[in-house]
Amino acid sequence: MRFARQLVQTPDGPIARVIAAGNGTDTWHDVRSSVRRRARARGATTEGALRIAEALVPSSMSAALAHGELFLDAAREAADDAAEETRVDDVVLTNALDPVSYRDYMVFQEHFSFGFRWQNKPVPDVMYEFPVSYAGDPLTFLGPHDEIPWPSYTERLDYELEIGIVIGRTGTALTPDTALDHVLGLTILNDVSARDIQAREMTSGLGPSKGKHFACVAGPYITTLDEIPDDGLRMTARVNGEPWCDTSSAEMVWSVAEIVAWASQAEILRPGALLGTGTCNGGSTVEIDRRLAPGDEIELEVDKLGVLRNTLGRPGTGSWRPAARNRESNGHATTLHFLR
Amino acid sequence: MRFARQLVQTPDGPIARVIAAGNGTDTWHDVRSSVRRRARARGATTEGALRIAEALVPSSMSAALAHGELFLDAAREAADDAAEETRVDDVVLTNALDPVSYRDYMVFQEHFSFGFRWQNKPVPDVMYEFPVSYAGDPLTFLGPHDEIPWPSYTERLDYELEIGIVIGRTGTALTPDTALDHVLGLTILNDVSARDIQAREMTSGLGPSKGKHFACVAGPYITTLDEIPDDGLRMTARVNGEPWCDTSSAEMVWSVAEIVAWASQAEILRPGALLGTGTCNGGSTVEIDRRLAPGDEIELEVDKLGVLRNTLGRPGTGSWRPAARNRESNGHATTLHFLR
Repeated sequence: MRFARQLVQTPDGPIARVIAAGNGTDTWHDVRSSVRRRARARGATTEGALRIAEALVPSSMSAALAHGELFLDAAREAADDAAEETRVDDVVLTNALDPVSYRDYMVFQEHFSFGFRWQNKPVPDVMYEFPVSYAGDPLTFLGPHDEIPWPSYTERLDYELEIGIVIGRTGTALTPDTALDHVLGLTILNDVSARDIQAREMTSGLGPSKGKHFACVAGPYITTLDEIPDDGLRMTARVNGEPWCDTSSAEMVWSVAEIVAWASQAEILRPGALLGTGTCNGGSTVEIDRRLAPGDEIELEVDKLGVLRNTLGRPGTGSWRPAARNRESNGHATTLHFLR
Repeated sequence: MRFARQLVQTPDGPIARVIAAGNGTDTWHDVRSSVRRRARARGATTEGALRIAEALVPSSMSAALAHGELFLDAAREAADDAAEETRVDDVVLTNALDPVSYRDYMVFQEHFSFGFRWQNKPVPDVMYEFPVSYAGDPLTFLGPHDEIPWPSYTERLDYELEIGIVIGRTGTALTPDTALDHVLGLTILNDVSARDIQAREMTSGLGPSKGKHFACVAGPYITTLDEIPDDGLRMTARVNGEPWCDTSSAEMVWSVAEIVAWASQAEILRPGALLGTGTCNGGSTVEIDRRLAPGDEIELEVDKLGVLRNTLGRPGTGSWRPAARNRESNGHATTLHFLR
């Protein structure tokens, strides 16, 4: 089963509607319309059916997933019916998931081994002790077709070809045996990166922030786990139509089940939480020594998950950047501050 | 002005209500009740007044702040009236803010200098180039009186005495001159840390995750910026009543205005976003070589911001942890995975 969201125009501006792909068809169906139709058939008034449908299937995918089996049953019914009345055409997809939280791991061995060599560092032992991650900003997600902004503070914008793990059911203290029951499905993830400032930030030990938090892309849709083979998915990247990466998802030091289980220790994973695998082997420009330019078209394709296509914007101008602090001979800043 | 949230019992379980401290009083007032009362006085029916009040003043502080001046005016009116009818007594405060996003900086020089020495590293230059941060989990916030969970995977739980900066108004591409217009106010922040696993994680360069994301505490209330003097606030910590830290907020390498301005470059700061200053000088047990134990009571006090008091729970048991990967002579893992 596949989930997505499309934008529709309303008198109050565009809003997102949750849609599901019809089983055995190539059509998309509006889940809220399906719920409304079924409620009418069971005796609800026109207004009552709409109230129930609006409550059960909100615009937010995370809010819909928070309704558990109530929502999933409704989505399955919409997909099974694949009714003419709920079909939507000329679909403009927006980000399938508005995540409630986002963390990104680093589990592809060739990728992280290259990354540490690039920084003149040995691969730290922790990479083989448990899955490690940084946290991203859940509020800056883009969808298919959105232009990726180019921050004024970077000269080296990069894509990262990854797989996103979408949590569908609340879970904590999971094990690899139980973890996959809490995963709704997978989606393509482009963890956009500003390499120069990211490398600078990571010398602090706190991980990337301005190098990552300006944008992240997920989509075009979410494919449920029952459709995903365990022997891996082919992952490819094209820039302006030219192949730049061709690899497999089955090269991870830690499995999806292990990543989710570890993430859930001492934490509650919520419906709509997004976990990234980290960049696949060869899945960014750094390791193939290429450069992106404004206007470039990035296409990320993963078997079963579709194609995620975005274009890079032009560098922003004129934004503020702190002037480096003056330091005394002892290395400490000469002035200290509070509010201003 | 001070904002907080209290828990009230309903037939559907406890819910949070936004409250404001009365101007010139020591009483708390329910903002939704105040809006309802004023709407009634302007001709709304009982039901109509309730609908408007529920929409304007939701349970979520971030959702309320998303209403901009509409909400802030309502809160000001509740505080100015300090009406007997809206007064709430025997208040049990919950977390004042349910943040939409959370990032934590590291701007106190003595603290970070100690931290790098502790890891046998020199202080990296980037600490004086711009404010650096890691991103936390906005979904795991606790409030005053909540017990802090002790994850099974740590033997060294720690508090961090910090100040939280609450964004009140959407902003992007700000400068230090405009940044403070987007700050609602400040609150006390306890960025709880599991030191052993945090140190291990940070050898990956990705920053802390399991060492931080299990819990964070904010509160007990938010004090608006107009009540905060620019020459700094006294910050103290007590453990089981014994003073462990006594310092000032006016020892930051980067100011609140600079932190917010830098955070807003190429990003949109949203109402309800929370930014931490990082630990104040001497504001954790590491730098004073003390240890916490289960059941310890942590009290963090900041002038103008109140006292944030929490007790540490008992270590969890029996949770799953990955077994380290076997590595070949070339240092690479012997098995690779995908789903399972």
